[in-house]
Amino acid sequence: MYGSTLGNIFRVSTWGESHGKGIGVIIDGCPAGLPLSEEDIQEYLNRRKPGQSRYTTKRQEDDAVEILSGVFEGKTTGTPISLMVHNKDQRSKDYSEIAQYYRPGHADLNYDIKYGFRDYRGGGRSSGRETIGRVAAGAVASKLLKELGISVCAYTSAIGPVTINPNNFNKEEIQKNPLYMPDAQAAEKAQNYLEQCMKECNSSGGMVECIISGVPAGIGEPAFEKLDAALAKAIFSIGAVKGFEIGDGMNASRSTGLQNNDGYCIDENGCRQKHSNHSGGITGGMSDGCDIVFRAAFKPTPSIAAPQKTVNRQGENIEIEIHGRHDPIIVPRAVVVVESMAALVILDFMLASMTTRLDKIKEFFQK
Amino acid sequence: MYGSTLGNIFRVSTWGESHGKGIGVIIDGCPAGLPLSEEDIQEYLNRRKPGQSRYTTKRQEDDAVEILSGVFEGKTTGTPISLMVHNKDQRSKDYSEIAQYYRPGHADLNYDIKYGFRDYRGGGRSSGRETIGRVAAGAVASKLLKELGISVCAYTSAIGPVTINPNNFNKEEIQKNPLYMPDAQAAEKAQNYLEQCMKECNSSGGMVECIISGVPAGIGEPAFEKLDAALAKAIFSIGAVKGFEIGDGMNASRSTGLQNNDGYCIDENGCRQKHSNHSGGITGGMSDGCDIVFRAAFKPTPSIAAPQKTVNRQGENIEIEIHGRHDPIIVPRAVVVVESMAALVILDFMLASMTTRLDKIKEFFQK
Amino acid sequence: MYGSTLGNIFRVSTWGESHGKGIGVIIDGCPAGLPLSEEDIQEYLNRRKPGQSRYTTKRQEDDAVEILSGVFEGKTTGTPISLMVHNKDQRSKDYSEIAQYYRPGHADLNYDIKYGFRDYRGGGRSSGRETIGRVAAGAVASKLLKELGISVCAYTSAIGPVTINPNNFNKEEIQKNPLYMPDAQAAEKAQNYLEQCMKECNSSGGMVECIISGVPAGIGEPAFEKLDAALAKAIFSIGAVKGFEIGDGMNASRSTGLQNNDGYCIDENGCRQKHSNHSGGITGGMSDGCDIVFRAAFKPTPSIAAPQKTVNRQGENIEIEIHGRHDPIIVPRAVVVVESMAALVILDFMLASMTTRLDKIKEFFQK
Amino acid sequence: MYGSTLGNIFRVSTWGESHGKGIGVIIDGCPAGLPLSEEDIQEYLNRRKPGQSRYTTKRQEDDAVEILSGVFEGKTTGTPISLMVHNKDQRSKDYSEIAQYYRPGHADLNYDIKYGFRDYRGGGRSSGRETIGRVAAGAVASKLLKELGISVCAYTSAIGPVTINPNNFNKEEIQKNPLYMPDAQAAEKAQNYLEQCMKECNSSGGMVECIISGVPAGIGEPAFEKLDAALAKAIFSIGAVKGFEIGDGMNASRSTGLQNNDGYCIDENGCRQKHSNHSGGITGGMSDGCDIVFRAAFKPTPSIAAPQKTVNRQGENIEIEIHGRHDPIIVPRAVVVVESMAALVILDFMLASMTTRLDKIKEFFQK
Repeated sequence: MYGSTLGNIFRVSTWGESHGKGIGVIIDGCPAGLPLSEEDIQEYLNRRKPGQSRYTTKRQEDDAVEILSGVFEGKTTGTPISLMVHNKDQRSKDYSEIAQYYRPGHADLNYDIKYGFRDYRGGGRSSGRETIGRVAAGAVASKLLKELGISVCAYTSAIGPVTINPNNFNKEEIQKNPLYMPDAQAAEKAQNYLEQCMKECNSSGGMVECIISGVPAGIGEPAFEKLDAALAKAIFSIGAVKGFEIGDGMNASRSTGLQNNDGYCIDENGCRQKHSNHSGGITGGMSDGCDIVFRAAFKPTPSIAAPQKTVNRQGENIEIEIHGRHDPIIVPRAVVVVESMAALVILDFMLASMTTRLDKIKEFFQK
Repeated sequence: MYGSTLGNIFRVSTWGESHGKGIGVIIDGCPAGLPLSEEDIQEYLNRRKPGQSRYTTKRQEDDAVEILSGVFEGKTTGTPISLMVHNKDQRSKDYSEIAQYYRPGHADLNYDIKYGFRDYRGGGRSSGRETIGRVAAGAVASKLLKELGISVCAYTSAIGPVTINPNNFNKEEIQKNPLYMPDAQAAEKAQNYLEQCMKECNSSGGMVECIISGVPAGIGEPAFEKLDAALAKAIFSIGAVKGFEIGDGMNASRSTGLQNNDGYCIDENGCRQKHSNHSGGITGGMSDGCDIVFRAAFKPTPSIAAPQKTVNRQGENIEIEIHGRHDPIIVPRAVVVVESMAALVILDFMLASMTTRLDKIKEFFQK
Repeated sequence: MYGSTLGNIFRVSTWGESHGKGIGVIIDGCPAGLPLSEEDIQEYLNRRKPGQSRYTTKRQEDDAVEILSGVFEGKTTGTPISLMVHNKDQRSKDYSEIAQYYRPGHADLNYDIKYGFRDYRGGGRSSGRETIGRVAAGAVASKLLKELGISVCAYTSAIGPVTINPNNFNKEEIQKNPLYMPDAQAAEKAQNYLEQCMKECNSSGGMVECIISGVPAGIGEPAFEKLDAALAKAIFSIGAVKGFEIGDGMNASRSTGLQNNDGYCIDENGCRQKHSNHSGGITGGMSDGCDIVFRAAFKPTPSIAAPQKTVNRQGENIEIEIHGRHDPIIVPRAVVVVESMAALVILDFMLASMTTRLDKIKEFFQK
Repeated sequence: MYGSTLGNIFRVSTWGESHGKGIGVIIDGCPAGLPLSEEDIQEYLNRRKPGQSRYTTKRQEDDAVEILSGVFEGKTTGTPISLMVHNKDQRSKDYSEIAQYYRPGHADLNYDIKYGFRDYRGGGRSSGRETIGRVAAGAVASKLLKELGISVCAYTSAIGPVTINPNNFNKEEIQKNPLYMPDAQAAEKAQNYLEQCMKECNSSGGMVECIISGVPAGIGEPAFEKLDAALAKAIFSIGAVKGFEIGDGMNASRSTGLQNNDGYCIDENGCRQKHSNHSGGITGGMSDGCDIVFRAAFKPTPSIAAPQKTVNRQGENIEIEIHGRHDPIIVPRAVVVVESMAALVILDFMLASMTTRLDKIKEFFQK
């Protein structure tokens, strides 16, 4: 089945493998008239680029993006935008060995069964490099959302057992430490924890949190196309995500109605507000006008240098050590991927919401 | 935007409101030749029917299903299957009051903003009754999956703070207690907890777990159409779900690679197995041949009789008490909804997997 | 494969067979706030109802429509609209004979091969009664289009060899003769021709023309989603259509650039006009602001009482005569079906066009 | 709206403009295991390449295709196939003049209204160069169809008033004359006709016919997804197509049931056959096992050097002559585009047909 397209109106299709000629994305349905340059996109790609710190793979890639179509005289034309990054530092021979066995925590075996064989070079289509297309498209979506007064901000909220302290939350800090944590103290502790993991040839899981501000109420649909459902799918489509929650999330299951309900009130300025935001900004699948807040749990990088037991293609039990250029933690580079996926979903649903009311449609066409 | 259709190949579209003439569903893309009767479907609907216990609404509904099309001489014909349940015990006047204000934890305000007005009778399209269509379709999907050797089993794993003990797990028990818990002791504790909630005019959240057995490896797609992503969306599209996790789920974020990786081994019979199932049966977005295990967190029923603060349509701060026929907990009746949604996703992806390999396609058409 | 859904934003899904319990349609994505009653829809259904004249089947059906959901206090709510017509005069035994053989010009054999068996009662899903759902949905789309200043008008332009004379064109005449022709003289000749066909136990083909007025320029997309391409598919999805053309149509292939190009000019009022409309209102897949004009060719009714040669299910050559309640010509009752399909496509594309320009999107959300 | 994707299972998305950096296509959903090289694709692209004869534009382009992803060790992997052709001979300044006015027969004005401005270089997204992506994808689909025993063959059946004589039909001849006509005599006459057009700075329309052999019965769906409807849309999505017909086509409207019905018979070998093929191989929207035969009418090239009246952006009446590098007829180069679009549709529907019958699905998964 096709499976590389996201979105109903602002449609994004990614292509490319870890060790092929490049990675790319087509955006179909981008409105005309958005000023767009390669720099706009590069800024986002640089946040997921390898080699930013000692916690990321040593693979050398500029990830320099090229706009191949859909932009004319500095503005989007309304026709498909094709974006591409060339792979440069692919070293396929690193992978000749892993072609012979099934790595624990990877999808190697699933590929072999599904397709009859697999592109064993660096995870092929399951490589983290596939997310380049998502981030490039996410940069475009984010720029468009800004024009509509909407901002999306993701950050690392936990690395292994180290979690941020909400009291120390400082948005400025996010871009200052290599782990993209909004709490300098937690970031230091997390780095110590990672050093220990690396010494043990091990890896760590972590958590990404995301806050979306400025979304008007009423975005999202009542039944299957709930806004939180679409966010859940988009975030779960990022490799290594094992859990997704919104607002109080898993804790809501241990709560009561009196605790969990967000009542409305009229504040001193006569504005309608919610007392609290246990819902995380979405009720009944529709935005309620408050900040949308969600979290995603990432599993630890499966490629580790410590010895592991598994089987080879000949059906023999073997022990392996996976050397090569792997991140000891996926989370810091995944932050911008989460932000991008959220932006893509929110934009797509904003556009979809324009056809909901006859009064507004008539007004639109009467001008 | 349209938002009432689920699935790419086995496509399900629901319609109907809480207090309209009825609730229904169309299944388009159901393979021809499946024996199907109204009894097959009724069995599933009875598990979500109101009035099963003192923990469910007192609204009286048979929820008797009628097959309107797509079945001829007891078998599906391959054309759209239309299923309908008539609403019988709608008492719209119960709701004349709530038309005037915005209930905390409900989507009332979102509807008003999105559509300009709302069907205020019993939640309209956001009513739990919308899930009748999902369960009716899920019954058909489940029957078809059985023909392919696949079973789906959901149950309540927690009610408020009361969780099942894995050591007491007994599948037979699920259908024996009104809470659909696979642990008789936990079920008793949970009932006591609910009694307390009801006394306080309060409600409780809870957790549903689901196990899918028999899915071959390789189902699901690498990028956006990961099997776990599709499950996440489908489950999150059920009203009141606030969290979704698969396998180790949120805990994976606190784990390490050595702990979390599932190594393969060859067992004494020469069969390939996984040492463990931290992945919950899906790796890289594709099934890995093991049981698929996921959990969903449900928030507490928002309609409670205890006094709550909110605002009315005139923009005044008010205090309300919501009387009427509401479940003190959503979870037990949601169990079969979770099971149905899982069945719909798995079947849809199974069918999609048939076009993945040229060798199998050639074989298919050569006969 | 699913195949009963039309449209991207205004989505229509039909269900039901000729001799099942009924026929219906769900509209998902209809904007909220459209005043809608059963009478609005019935008016359209009456135009395709059987028994209007001696040129239509004698099957007795009121085709009385019921609105089952999606309308509250006389207005659409924005949620799925479910519409249903009960079958009343199904006489399945009429068809016990045709279960045994393959009717020339029908899809009987295709069904048997595709699905393994077929619902042989009156064409099953291929019956003309399937168009009830299309017309019911088309009535809703037409009402909404009227609010946007757009009208759709179809009529019979030829019956067998009898074509209308453009000089006699009279829109008022369309609803006055049983053949829905806008030329009273041609209508009379056509009736004589049909009498002859009926005497010979034969049937006739014909042509439907459709004019859509008021569509602004720029509706439709450049590549695969051209407006004329979408119209072509929608019209070709009506059973018995064998040809579709727009503007000069097939004749354009025999024309030259100098003849076929529609130049622009500024008229005496300073308005931009086209000199001519060879394009039929669509250029480059987008509406150009002029009337959209297309034609569809219908084959003759395949069910005829004259003797025909064919084979039975046992693989024997046989001769048959098909008696029963069949229209000697499909075209007059197809007029409203063509009109409905055109309305569905135009509305869907109008709604889609709202997300094309950033300047208009910003304006939309700033209010 | 997005509009650059075709297909449900074998999904093709094109991108690129006439004078941008290049033109490309992504194929998502191509089964794994198909041997595929750049040569396989180049062969098809060469048939639509400019500069093949004096009847095609003098723009110099190799149209050399590059496979960027989805192929590993010479076989498709089942993941997205990205194909690209770099533009080389774009001379944008040729177009600085046409930026100022609206060319008759072109979509210039529609673009300006739809998007607020346009990429005026060579037709932008409406350029014939957009079909490069279609042909590249069509080459892949055709190769896959061959593995399933299906062939698609298109050719020019008329140029202006010159039509092929069925008695002279010679398939071998198609690739021998620059007009891709299967009748050498007609090809010569057509060339004379074109010389005359060129002398008059005029252009000609024409007709393409296509025969698809080997499609089993039962491909296509009963209601909206009829196989002929999908073909109609795909072919109508090629720029300049104004009419589409299948089998007897427009003539069926002038026919009677006795003439038009295709009866079945058992031939001397005991095989079931159709007496005739008025249906063109599709009945009730499903293939009937016979050759599928359709025709498309193309309008004349709108860009002509003869003087024409139109208006400029300032709203003034002007007279223009369009010089530059334009084909005097679109049809010969469109032949391979028609063939490609037909292959894409047939393959997509073949794959979709695999999920129609439960007996075959069970058999598929039991192996």
